[in-house]
Amino acid sequence: MVEHIPSFEKLVNELNKLPSIGPKTAQRLGYHILRSPQNYVSNLREALQQVAQRVRQCSKCFCYTEEPDLCHYCTDSSRDQHQICIVEDPEDIAPIDASRAFRGIYHVLHGTIAPLEGRGPNDIKVRELIERIDMGLNNPDLKINEVILALDADLEGDTTVLYLTKALQNKDTLISRIAHGVPIGGDIDYIDKRTLGRALENRVSL
Amino acid sequence: MVEHIPSFEKLVNELNKLPSIGPKTAQRLGYHILRSPQNYVSNLREALQQVAQRVRQCSKCFCYTEEPDLCHYCTDSSRDQHQICIVEDPEDIAPIDASRAFRGIYHVLHGTIAPLEGRGPNDIKVRELIERIDMGLNNPDLKINEVILALDADLEGDTTVLYLTKALQNKDTLISRIAHGVPIGGDIDYIDKRTLGRALENRVSL
Repeated sequence: MVEHIPSFEKLVNELNKLPSIGPKTAQRLGYHILRSPQNYVSNLREALQQVAQRVRQCSKCFCYTEEPDLCHYCTDSSRDQHQICIVEDPEDIAPIDASRAFRGIYHVLHGTIAPLEGRGPNDIKVRELIERIDMGLNNPDLKINEVILALDADLEGDTTVLYLTKALQNKDTLISRIAHGVPIGGDIDYIDKRTLGRALENRVSL
Repeated sequence: MVEHIPSFEKLVNELNKLPSIGPKTAQRLGYHILRSPQNYVSNLREALQQVAQRVRQCSKCFCYTEEPDLCHYCTDSSRDQHQICIVEDPEDIAPIDASRAFRGIYHVLHGTIAPLEGRGPNDIKVRELIERIDMGLNNPDLKINEVILALDADLEGDTTVLYLTKALQNKDTLISRIAHGVPIGGDIDYIDKRTLGRALENRVSL
């Protein structure tokens, strides 16, 4: 049926390019859109256009924002502007902020160092991070006292942590990494052995 | 984070209205769209607009089509134009056509009779079906020899089958319903008892 309706086939193909949307789901979404009132399609089209036109990266921390220059984190004077949390992707910011355990500002790397995939430090926002920290060396207003690395505990995350730890040495800033261990509410007998190993290694004295 | 980017929030809300797209998936799709090249967004917007502008219902069988009047099924002279398969939704046509066991034409009811949800025969394309069959009574070119009901075997499907069987009596046409039973390749010990009951009732003599 789809192959007889070119515009429908095109829509299903475009939807199929989205993550976790397979051909079957794309077709189901397409039929739903066909059945939707005309104003749903115009609302969705307008939302897509506005996102494409308005959303950009903050020139300081590289998170997504609609502000012309700096995002609302970087201009929020109630936040500790001397403490930076380093994340891989913009979507990592929301859960960290929701934890309410961090009230500093962010730096989005937009990726990790992954030699196996041919991605080096120059392919992510590492140079921009070092410049941010360097600027604070002679200017107390911009001084970065602590850099918290909130990266995944996988091969790429560990490689990136190693690289940054070396690159930020002698920059007069504390460097820390978020703790990896047993999740709150997690059952010890269901936790994988690598996580449990890390939890034991990084045990906290009471 | 989302609440600080109005256009992004709007896009996520619109995506969240699609079936099987929860708030988490909507957000993930939104971030993916933000990271996509600009031409993905324009392609998707164009596809949405074309579908909304071009796709309409066939004036005879009510399946979706881009043709100005009749769909390609209703104008295909290689198909048996005297045999109609009745389906609930346009998306039911593709799998039936793919079975290659049917080479007639279709009639899409766009729903079922569901008294519990307040949906009667006048809310779906029943009148149009009866008109199609009536037109053939005095015109051999339009004569409908068989009506095959390909509706689900649930309460609404059964109600609709009952209603149509009665409404199409004395219309000089065969009325049949697709067989419900154990699927090909299905394990008898895994099949629910209602399906198995139906399979035994409708056993085929060899």
